[in-house]
Amino acid sequence: MTELPEAVRSRLQPVNRTLETLETPAVLIDADVADANLRRWQERCDAAGLVNRPHIKTHRSVAWALRQVELGAKGITVQTVGEAEVMADAGIRDLFLTTMTFGAAKLARLGEVAKRTKLAVVADSQEAVDAVAGAAKAAGARIRVLVEIESGAGRCGLADPADIAGLAKHIAASEGLSFGGLMTYPAAGKRLQGEQVLQATIEACAAAGLDVPVVSSGGSPDMWKDDGLAPVTEYRAGTYIYNDRALLSRDTATPEQCAMTVLATVVSRPTAERAIIDAGSKALTSDLLGLNGHGQILEHPEAVIYALNEEHGMVDVSGCAVPPKVGDRIHVLPNHTCVVTNLFDRMYVVNDGKLAGALPVEARGKSI
Amino acid sequence: MTELPEAVRSRLQPVNRTLETLETPAVLIDADVADANLRRWQERCDAAGLVNRPHIKTHRSVAWALRQVELGAKGITVQTVGEAEVMADAGIRDLFLTTMTFGAAKLARLGEVAKRTKLAVVADSQEAVDAVAGAAKAAGARIRVLVEIESGAGRCGLADPADIAGLAKHIAASEGLSFGGLMTYPAAGKRLQGEQVLQATIEACAAAGLDVPVVSSGGSPDMWKDDGLAPVTEYRAGTYIYNDRALLSRDTATPEQCAMTVLATVVSRPTAERAIIDAGSKALTSDLLGLNGHGQILEHPEAVIYALNEEHGMVDVSGCAVPPKVGDRIHVLPNHTCVVTNLFDRMYVVNDGKLAGALPVEARGKSI
Repeated sequence: MTELPEAVRSRLQPVNRTLETLETPAVLIDADVADANLRRWQERCDAAGLVNRPHIKTHRSVAWALRQVELGAKGITVQTVGEAEVMADAGIRDLFLTTMTFGAAKLARLGEVAKRTKLAVVADSQEAVDAVAGAAKAAGARIRVLVEIESGAGRCGLADPADIAGLAKHIAASEGLSFGGLMTYPAAGKRLQGEQVLQATIEACAAAGLDVPVVSSGGSPDMWKDDGLAPVTEYRAGTYIYNDRALLSRDTATPEQCAMTVLATVVSRPTAERAIIDAGSKALTSDLLGLNGHGQILEHPEAVIYALNEEHGMVDVSGCAVPPKVGDRIHVLPNHTCVVTNLFDRMYVVNDGKLAGALPVEARGKSI
Repeated sequence: MTELPEAVRSRLQPVNRTLETLETPAVLIDADVADANLRRWQERCDAAGLVNRPHIKTHRSVAWALRQVELGAKGITVQTVGEAEVMADAGIRDLFLTTMTFGAAKLARLGEVAKRTKLAVVADSQEAVDAVAGAAKAAGARIRVLVEIESGAGRCGLADPADIAGLAKHIAASEGLSFGGLMTYPAAGKRLQGEQVLQATIEACAAAGLDVPVVSSGGSPDMWKDDGLAPVTEYRAGTYIYNDRALLSRDTATPEQCAMTVLATVVSRPTAERAIIDAGSKALTSDLLGLNGHGQILEHPEAVIYALNEEHGMVDVSGCAVPPKVGDRIHVLPNHTCVVTNLFDRMYVVNDGKLAGALPVEARGKSI
């Protein structure tokens, strides 16, 4: 890539630094890699006949959300009302909120979003349905509600097909709401089990006289696998834009497809075995996702980030042929991109190996 | 408390909500508890003849930093140049930065802070000393440098007294720098071991003709214990303002002394055993600090937050006599306050059981 996508290029803020002088810790995004990831996944969805509804929680960035829509995403998935507001402000008009909303103040904000977008949400209880119905009524807006289904991941969601069909009927009968279909997040490696649950539920809905317009599934680890997709009409994936060490460990991505690194500096070499870098839990988070160590140092694959303080990573460099020196700058592939994004006000965009500028993370902190 | 401290009161932003209508997840700070924590620790330092130099990384808040200084803290401890800038902007003039700084851009910012404050930093290598000497020279400022000592915690720091005295001499001989003394962070429960290291080092410095003006120690778990303090002249504690579940588990604080909770809502009760709350890793972080579970629900002490997704906490409520219902609002005592602070733009101040307003977290995200 020499030409950055317009959605990204037009939102880049100038940075009075180069890659060599940028202060650490800093999040770097290789725009070429990220954009190729977006295009490859859109092609896969198109080929599979799946609606692509990417989860913007990974990047929390207007530029990348607009780019995803430009490449063919029908709309986006958001996880919070705050994310929905940021993306509605940016002009995105088709939103799916995959969490349930309670409390008058947040429901009022949800209603405002519904007035200016095509909004769908989820519910797994009558209370959740009634809450969103109240928001729709107060705003004079229409909201689609999908029933969230438990298909093996042990998150939210109803499991019994009769209960699900019952809640779907309650949605369909609620003023201001329409029954939008079914939504699930299958457990990794259990999408075939999820398919059985979905099929039984679709049958239960049909028996209750309900059409199921959308069957929405998600999850990054199995996103490239074809099994269990038969009833699925749309897919929610998030991490694929950047990928990370967790997806690498699951063979969902290759090292060349990882777009995010955290640039850090070696600040201390107190012993022959130990190095300290200036990226700690306030830069990498302590998310392990089952991995050993808090990220991978690309320049020193044998090094292990074995512990984090808030501003420091502790690195065992005893396995390194040429261990890092004080002052060295290194790149850390984080365990989990989505939580790293949320710690930084801006990410630095790298294009053709050069620092192109900074992108604001507009929805950073918007968990409310 | 009916009267909030002026430093806090004058910085409160109005909030068009009550405690009952505030959107979740939200960080609540009981101002009465926090202020009592600050006063009690200042009294302890005064009684022990210790300079109190609180670590503002816990609250990252101008209001609370100013309150700490008003109550008797000689100055504050910061962990990053970004924190130092925020606190210098707020008028705090005595800063101790406990991390090492590399890279021209960040060193230039460090020099600017030194021009307008009484600044001390740490070093454990000649490279670190030379870097800060360059910053001092370029800014035309004087910076005190304390040698960081490894006394059992396995962080940064030199361990050999002769090496330490040698680095101290290098500092003393560097233009723009003065040797500020010794700094360490002892391992929890090993402060007596740390004392031996400090004593040996002080002797080595004396033998090299160097006075040791400051011996700075820190660490919250042992902060109320008297052992190992003989050579220590100042103490850096941070978490004591809010306390948290980790300090509770170490008997460093009582439940009544915990000032921070995360207000959350039960959004789903998919099974008899499981509840889902709207506080996940983007509100609580995944810091475990050796604990079981990701925080304690105050209203349901038997409940276990056994897993986190980004916006959801998974709660095992099978042990609860009266488990929470969908829509219930609950308070989570977080495992680790310092990282929770860093996820939120503002914290909500509670006074006499009522919402008094919001305080900005001015140094949120300032890890750079």
